[in-house]
Amino acid sequence: MSKASGALSGEERLIARYFKPLAKHPGAFGLADDAAAVTPPAGCDLVLKTDGIVAGVHFFPDDPPETVGKKALRANLSDLAAKGARPLGFLLTLALPHDIGDAWLAPFARGLGADAEAFACPLLGGDTDSTAGPITISIAAIGAVPQGKMLRRAGAKAGDRVVVTGTIGDAALGLLLRRDIAAAERWSLTREARNSLQARYLVPEPRVAIAEILRAHASAAMDLSDGLAGDLGKLCRASAVNAEIDVTRVPLSDAARAALAKAPVLMEAIVTGGDDYEVLACVPAGKVEALSQQASAAGVLVSEIGTVARGEGEARFLGADGEPLVFAQTSFSHF
Amino acid sequence: MSKASGALSGEERLIARYFKPLAKHPGAFGLADDAAAVTPPAGCDLVLKTDGIVAGVHFFPDDPPETVGKKALRANLSDLAAKGARPLGFLLTLALPHDIGDAWLAPFARGLGADAEAFACPLLGGDTDSTAGPITISIAAIGAVPQGKMLRRAGAKAGDRVVVTGTIGDAALGLLLRRDIAAAERWSLTREARNSLQARYLVPEPRVAIAEILRAHASAAMDLSDGLAGDLGKLCRASAVNAEIDVTRVPLSDAARAALAKAPVLMEAIVTGGDDYEVLACVPAGKVEALSQQASAAGVLVSEIGTVARGEGEARFLGADGEPLVFAQTSFSHF
Repeated sequence: MSKASGALSGEERLIARYFKPLAKHPGAFGLADDAAAVTPPAGCDLVLKTDGIVAGVHFFPDDPPETVGKKALRANLSDLAAKGARPLGFLLTLALPHDIGDAWLAPFARGLGADAEAFACPLLGGDTDSTAGPITISIAAIGAVPQGKMLRRAGAKAGDRVVVTGTIGDAALGLLLRRDIAAAERWSLTREARNSLQARYLVPEPRVAIAEILRAHASAAMDLSDGLAGDLGKLCRASAVNAEIDVTRVPLSDAARAALAKAPVLMEAIVTGGDDYEVLACVPAGKVEALSQQASAAGVLVSEIGTVARGEGEARFLGADGEPLVFAQTSFSHF
Repeated sequence: MSKASGALSGEERLIARYFKPLAKHPGAFGLADDAAAVTPPAGCDLVLKTDGIVAGVHFFPDDPPETVGKKALRANLSDLAAKGARPLGFLLTLALPHDIGDAWLAPFARGLGADAEAFACPLLGGDTDSTAGPITISIAAIGAVPQGKMLRRAGAKAGDRVVVTGTIGDAALGLLLRRDIAAAERWSLTREARNSLQARYLVPEPRVAIAEILRAHASAAMDLSDGLAGDLGKLCRASAVNAEIDVTRVPLSDAARAALAKAPVLMEAIVTGGDDYEVLACVPAGKVEALSQQASAAGVLVSEIGTVARGEGEARFLGADGEPLVFAQTSFSHF
């Protein structure tokens, strides 16, 4: 026989070394098969989501590889949570420069593995290719909801309240700081404030803990990845309603509040910038209190920021003076 | 309100124009939500597979976009078929150069859509990003098998026969021709033979039609994407058996046979080259005839090429003289 046919290829070694340890689901077969086999939970619908990130577009080539792995998975977990779904597992496709080495792969896989464990979302399978371009990471995440119960963008009703989780705009400010660190001076940010904004850009916090609570109370929901203004517009169009947001009620971190006090123009970045990975939901007025209390018990802040009215898909943001804000660009778009 | 917040982004327009028409499954919500919802078939396991293709690696940047779309999906359908699974649908992640236009996207989506229809595998969701690098296409395909019945790489037993579908090596020869069209002269190929080899490289033929037949008869199976020699080695290691192949029984197309007659050295490319997308299976001796007949009735040629023996994962290829062939490289590997 050919000696080589008994040997592992470089690709097999790479998978065995970095990714096999993450494939803890028995149906992943230790990544030693061509596909995974998963028995779906009884009475459930699958919730299927895919999201990719590209070096130089969604993350900086010199971002810590550990946080890149976390961000790739968390972007998908955030969607599952906003749809009310519990994660079942994920598939990973990597396109990697030929000279990628241990210095990048080891911490990338470590970050990814830590989150797969933390969020009970095991690696089920993957594919590793070379590319002449930037590192490109695509994840397909699979979740489950009781049949027919996936939260939709459609479903918001006139009279609903608009709520968001966490704080808004931190990642957008973190990105501005990443591009222009001198802004931290202009905004008079403490080192701690600066670090917290940058950390929010690097590692989002998917609201997996309240997926079931959202399902119990919300009439429509989505996660915020392309900016509150633009994403709310999408939800309004899908639900065929209008929404009116009081920007003074949009929840801000201490760091964002400090920056905004120095540079009021930042309100646009806060409301239209991407990468929040918070949940935007519309909730019947009578259920907001219960949602808020149950979410709080699960460690997640929920804030009411506006109302839903009859309409044809418009999202309106009112400033402190009650006048509508006009944004140059409401949402991030690749094209 | 901001006017822009009522308008569609470029990304939304791109998705609505090219990909929404492919999202015919009701749970894809016309791609107007963040995730798809699919009720899994009762009593089934999900079979989950992801496979990516990158311009300049898996296809040539000037390949017809229509065939690129087909190849991206078919590579995944081929895996589902070899695992005995029926397709349920797929997720698509695209990383596209910023200046990509209608001239590429329209035929790409057309090819992808034609195959989604032909193989009853609807688009369920996707993500579209920009990249400074080459076109990168990642597909995650979801299939179903009766619970516990996914065909594995593991499971081959001593005494099984090794079989393959279709013909082997055509895509590898098609790739050689793509790189060096003058080879067609040296191999004395007719125009028809040359075209048929090149077509096999561009558009593989996933054996979806015999997924259930394979499940009924095979003890182990996988699809051939990285070359018969290397992939058989993987199957042997997973099954902890040896296999012995009689290369004179490896099924060849007329075109491959003609080329091989002129250039016997091509046997290595035929046996180790990638992109066959045929099924490799191990089948108990008493079931080969039934498998072959049922597959033939479904329009798929099945050929017996060797035997399985006790062992530790070695794949041996014997030439016409009965002596083992030695290959420089048994399998394609990205790293």
